[in-house]
Amino acid sequence: MIHCSLERMKDKITTFSHFGDTGHGGITRFSLSPEALAARAEFTKRMEAIGATVVTDDMANMYATLPGTEPLKAIVSGSHLDSVRQGGNYDGVLGVMSAMEALETIATEKIPHRHPLTAMVWTNEEGARFEPAMMSSGVICGKFTKEKMLASVAKDQPGYTFGEALAASGYVGDEANRLSPARQCALIELHIEQGPVLEAEGYDIGVVDGVCGMINYEFTFTGQADHAGTTPMKYRKDALYATVKAIQYLHDELDKLDPALVYTTGKISAHPNIHTIIPDEVKFTIDVRHYNPAVIEQALAIIRKMPDEIVGCKVSYAEAWARKSVAYDPLLVDTVEESAVTCNYSHMRIHSGPGHDAQYVADILPTSMIFVPSVEGHSHCELEYTPAEACAKGVDVLIQTLLSLDRKLD
Amino acid sequence: MIHCSLERMKDKITTFSHFGDTGHGGITRFSLSPEALAARAEFTKRMEAIGATVVTDDMANMYATLPGTEPLKAIVSGSHLDSVRQGGNYDGVLGVMSAMEALETIATEKIPHRHPLTAMVWTNEEGARFEPAMMSSGVICGKFTKEKMLASVAKDQPGYTFGEALAASGYVGDEANRLSPARQCALIELHIEQGPVLEAEGYDIGVVDGVCGMINYEFTFTGQADHAGTTPMKYRKDALYATVKAIQYLHDELDKLDPALVYTTGKISAHPNIHTIIPDEVKFTIDVRHYNPAVIEQALAIIRKMPDEIVGCKVSYAEAWARKSVAYDPLLVDTVEESAVTCNYSHMRIHSGPGHDAQYVADILPTSMIFVPSVEGHSHCELEYTPAEACAKGVDVLIQTLLSLDRKLD
Repeated sequence: MIHCSLERMKDKITTFSHFGDTGHGGITRFSLSPEALAARAEFTKRMEAIGATVVTDDMANMYATLPGTEPLKAIVSGSHLDSVRQGGNYDGVLGVMSAMEALETIATEKIPHRHPLTAMVWTNEEGARFEPAMMSSGVICGKFTKEKMLASVAKDQPGYTFGEALAASGYVGDEANRLSPARQCALIELHIEQGPVLEAEGYDIGVVDGVCGMINYEFTFTGQADHAGTTPMKYRKDALYATVKAIQYLHDELDKLDPALVYTTGKISAHPNIHTIIPDEVKFTIDVRHYNPAVIEQALAIIRKMPDEIVGCKVSYAEAWARKSVAYDPLLVDTVEESAVTCNYSHMRIHSGPGHDAQYVADILPTSMIFVPSVEGHSHCELEYTPAEACAKGVDVLIQTLLSLDRKLD
Repeated sequence: MIHCSLERMKDKITTFSHFGDTGHGGITRFSLSPEALAARAEFTKRMEAIGATVVTDDMANMYATLPGTEPLKAIVSGSHLDSVRQGGNYDGVLGVMSAMEALETIATEKIPHRHPLTAMVWTNEEGARFEPAMMSSGVICGKFTKEKMLASVAKDQPGYTFGEALAASGYVGDEANRLSPARQCALIELHIEQGPVLEAEGYDIGVVDGVCGMINYEFTFTGQADHAGTTPMKYRKDALYATVKAIQYLHDELDKLDPALVYTTGKISAHPNIHTIIPDEVKFTIDVRHYNPAVIEQALAIIRKMPDEIVGCKVSYAEAWARKSVAYDPLLVDTVEESAVTCNYSHMRIHSGPGHDAQYVADILPTSMIFVPSVEGHSHCELEYTPAEACAKGVDVLIQTLLSLDRKLD
């Protein structure tokens, strides 16, 4: 069995952690920022050092390719280098470093492979400065129109568009270089789990068989604003108390569904939000995810059964967004699982809760993912952590998977 | 029985509603703003027109006095001319206009009175631009130090102090003119109820016998921020769900206390307040009011019985502020009640929920208040409304009260 170099992997983790270092254990590395461009340069430098050819496409996605011995389509692995504000050193970048490490190991160990092998960097996965998230995979896989994306305005800089940032980056290449079924035959994205399950259950590897479907609703409760000191309880239409009742109702009912269902009220706002005024309007979100669309349907039925009026307040709701479940390619999922067995690493099948570029790619190419554990499930924060040894296990499974696919695929 | 002039009262309501008119039925008239100074000038003009002498004190409070026939202390009535942002045409200003109308009626009708009668304007009751509320009555009645108040900075203008606004106003007078037991013997403040009770119960007049005591606590729930899509329900420490449980607990327990108790959660904030993140911190306030300190103590015991931990989240709380109950002067309260009887207006005893300048004055002078109904209980908003006829009934009771006190008091 082939092992990656733990030392080289540690060196990459340390090096990439400097690009956008917040000084508090994490990074802020918005897409196409100077910090992100420095990380891209490091990617190019290291990939060219092993003889890979680096090209970019018209969305500045990067492709570093080691040629194969046969005229076949490339097998690709990669992720993104950008982060949220005060994010961690693993989300995204670990998938890029793992793809690099896989290619470095294969090149250094001179392991023969028939297919070209490509390490990839996606532009603007987080959407932290320019919305939406998964922008470039979305464009390439037909989810978003490029023109609309180019017009996306920086959240922190009125008028400055993603298109301008892209043009200024120096990384715009040829549209002909885009990921495509004409040139690539499979994609494997390694990522941290971003949740607590693998660690809590004691597994090294998550074999990701798909992405959970999701619905997100925004509720609005409309009551009446009155003075806290003058309005007897019986006259009140308290939109916040109605909200409390509603959230409890949702919990009670959703808890009766499948135990794998997750649902979250993450966002709430009250108006006028003054301690001496009874709120006349409260808005809150509910995000519901499950792998099985039938369970999502059951959750939806519960939302729809919410009364029109609660404690005198009007209830309304609207779908904010939704995502269908994505099933990854069975051959690739099985190959990841076999590779974990070959490596003798403990593993479980898992669904991805968050979105990843790979889920858009699944529409155009056979795709799967490998998860490694997130310590205490932390993600999108500076506490995000996966020990280098645990990362290396993920890379070992990735190498095994790439080489196995190299044998299996035409 | 003496009636005020409904026409003159209507004219005042119309005239004062122009000072700071928002164009949507209400006013924005921050203390000492150009709009507030215009309202002050109108007060002076109308009071001088009936032969009153107008002076100000060092906090720019205004005193318009009709001399009495004997060398006695003055009987005072008044309120404030300032409003909250997008407030109504009645809160505060109605008390000033009513005092003006009482003096105008007494002067016009040449009704003899032994005591000097004073119509008063308090500076900065709302605290809408310069905190705190009830600033000048607080200074004069020893609640706040003047130096600290002068240093209060405008919420919307960094560095600009209340002291500077005061100096620029042209209304700073002599400290010797301050309201004081040496020069005044009683104060009656007429005000809108700011609540729905008088209207709902069908009464013309609220005979205010005191101000409710109040406690205000801020709760903090600390859980753990995790990704909404990756964290199974059993691993969560959801600070918002803990908050929902806590608010329901407070409602359930506080509802068992006296039915006159009012309690409100008006303010809530969640962190990070993102729809895909389980909140790790939620803060909310609870404001509890009752006339009887023993009931407030019972409410406090309920707050203290809140568990230290709810659904895995740590609970902490701190008193944000508190106010003791204020009992108004029994002789004055009885006199207001007798006056309502004399006028043949329906009336009920009522406690004030919100604070008023009168409650600070109660520490230094015999004091009471008269409430008139607020349509639908609206206040601190542009919908605030009391028909002129209902206002005039309040003025009639005020006139009756002033003349009755003129007979009763030495």
